[in-house]
Amino acid sequence: MNYGDFFSEDVGAFMRSPVREIFKKVDLASIYSFAGGYPDASTFPLDEVRSLSARVLEKYGAKALQYGATQGVPELREVIAKRYGVPVENVQITTSSQQGIDVCTRVFVNPGDVILTTAPTYLGALQSFKSYRAEIRTLDNPGGKKPKFCYVIPDFQNPSGETMSLEQRENLVALARERDFLIVEDSPYRELRYSGEPVPTLYSLAPERTLHLGSFSKIFAPGFRLGWILGPGPLLEQIYVCKQSLDLCPPVFDQYMAAEFMGSGALDANLQKSIALYRAKRDKMLSLLEKYMPEGVSWTHPEGGLFLFLTLPDGFDTVALYDRALSAGVAYVAGSFFYPDGSHRNTMRMNFSFLDASRMEAGVQLLAEVIKNH
Amino acid sequence: MNYGDFFSEDVGAFMRSPVREIFKKVDLASIYSFAGGYPDASTFPLDEVRSLSARVLEKYGAKALQYGATQGVPELREVIAKRYGVPVENVQITTSSQQGIDVCTRVFVNPGDVILTTAPTYLGALQSFKSYRAEIRTLDNPGGKKPKFCYVIPDFQNPSGETMSLEQRENLVALARERDFLIVEDSPYRELRYSGEPVPTLYSLAPERTLHLGSFSKIFAPGFRLGWILGPGPLLEQIYVCKQSLDLCPPVFDQYMAAEFMGSGALDANLQKSIALYRAKRDKMLSLLEKYMPEGVSWTHPEGGLFLFLTLPDGFDTVALYDRALSAGVAYVAGSFFYPDGSHRNTMRMNFSFLDASRMEAGVQLLAEVIKNH
Repeated sequence: MNYGDFFSEDVGAFMRSPVREIFKKVDLASIYSFAGGYPDASTFPLDEVRSLSARVLEKYGAKALQYGATQGVPELREVIAKRYGVPVENVQITTSSQQGIDVCTRVFVNPGDVILTTAPTYLGALQSFKSYRAEIRTLDNPGGKKPKFCYVIPDFQNPSGETMSLEQRENLVALARERDFLIVEDSPYRELRYSGEPVPTLYSLAPERTLHLGSFSKIFAPGFRLGWILGPGPLLEQIYVCKQSLDLCPPVFDQYMAAEFMGSGALDANLQKSIALYRAKRDKMLSLLEKYMPEGVSWTHPEGGLFLFLTLPDGFDTVALYDRALSAGVAYVAGSFFYPDGSHRNTMRMNFSFLDASRMEAGVQLLAEVIKNH
Repeated sequence: MNYGDFFSEDVGAFMRSPVREIFKKVDLASIYSFAGGYPDASTFPLDEVRSLSARVLEKYGAKALQYGATQGVPELREVIAKRYGVPVENVQITTSSQQGIDVCTRVFVNPGDVILTTAPTYLGALQSFKSYRAEIRTLDNPGGKKPKFCYVIPDFQNPSGETMSLEQRENLVALARERDFLIVEDSPYRELRYSGEPVPTLYSLAPERTLHLGSFSKIFAPGFRLGWILGPGPLLEQIYVCKQSLDLCPPVFDQYMAAEFMGSGALDANLQKSIALYRAKRDKMLSLLEKYMPEGVSWTHPEGGLFLFLTLPDGFDTVALYDRALSAGVAYVAGSFFYPDGSHRNTMRMNFSFLDASRMEAGVQLLAEVIKNH
């Protein structure tokens, strides 16, 4: 049977995640992996979840296992509204912040419409944008066509680790107002700041045109697949209608656990521990790169988040180098995957959150050897 | 600010769920509701979930809270594969079977493509199909254009409660093979049979072209938002790539609970109790309709599932009647919402799973009064 004829035109534009493909090929536990974007599993509040699940069943009973509202359960919307100082009507719960990206693309973008991004940018966003056949333009070369929205990760970007300054944010807002496009502010790492001072969110600077995407994946646990969107009512209204047909409602039991965890203050206590752990990992990573990387290799110095970005001397090709690294027992993600045009083949993303601190040195040393021996 | 210009063309085709809108207006607990499609909360295995969550945390630890594979965790795919006798490669876990419908539409349908359905059919499917601007044609009037797929709920259909005979299934398969279209077999109620004999699934009759959608919502609990798709590898492959950008992976903790629940046999034990409860509710509903409904009202006699379908005499308009019913304290869903063309305004869907058996008589009596007094 020939299945090719059945697929929609969107399928021709689908892009596989090279990260997810790597995970299918190798057992992460068997190598030194700087590849994924996984949180350190030791930050997951296992004991808390045990008591949370009992508490949720006690408090809500069968309601925790029933269908819930498409916008999310009121209890979770309320704690998020309170935490971020917005009216509860401006909070939509999503089944992961990836769904937040997907639903924004669905609701705003026709094939051929322009989406602005930074370069590099988050791979999962590129996957979503390409799957809807958007035209992706970068902020430094936006072209003449009016964009539908600009997608940015202003805090501790994935993959670069960089944070937009207040001036950069204000400039983006001015441009968005001038050319009348929306801003999708993806903010999964914002609460993971290890040094420096917080910069105002784009949502606070331009609440009338910003959709701010939050995530529980890095401040609670990714296994619950919960995120949220803060945004203007008229935009959330259509996102809500779209979400009815996407999955009816987010996972209810998980939402009540997240509401209890955030509302009780346990999330903040856990977050302090995560920040201390990740700060030490970032510092260790930076000093290991300093110690082992050969002349000509440079990297970003993130103030938070999970990633930093390496630039190798011109002529290096991290896509070609990848199999050699894997054979040597170390994994990264080639930086060019994060560029809409696949350029910058001499860069790589390194995650510093997942690998045990005790294994980092051997991993960085191996990677440095692979680079030197090239 | 004028938000209207930002929306994609799909948004113009979005359709709100009248069912979900009803739920926003009234507190279900305060009325006699035959409106929703909610399971009876007493079928939810609350005590089991308490011990399941502890067991999952014990057995899998932090893995239960980490990101998982896009196809679903292997443990859950395996128990589903075993239960339904298919290779594990042919199982994709979805974040609700509503997502199964959505992702099939996304992967197969361009705007203007034809989807065949029965009339009436499931509202959430119509929402999804319309949101992708498909042309919906019905099986009794399919038109000349080759359909992409035919969407059916062969067992205890929502809303009609009817089951397709083997002959009807064989005819559909023959038509699909002749005209070369796919079959999307939505099967959330199949395991809830109260009388009669099972009929082979369309998937068993045409495995080469059928996507079979399963759901945990009616056999475990809807609050976990878990479903699955069984289907041919080449079709699942693109669904898998699409799902990467939809939400990366289904909820992991919930998946492990579902795997334990199904794999241990606890699901089957619970299912036997649910079937007994629902059988009694169906029988009670049928006898109450017999007792109270005026001459000229007829209804279906489902062998399973959650719904039956009433036909009132010509001239009745259940959409117009709805506010009167609500004022009297009883809710249903107008049948015309389930017809792609909005016809059959003298019909209504009645759910018999949700309302306490003890409250059914008063509810049916009220509804019969509303009809008589019209």
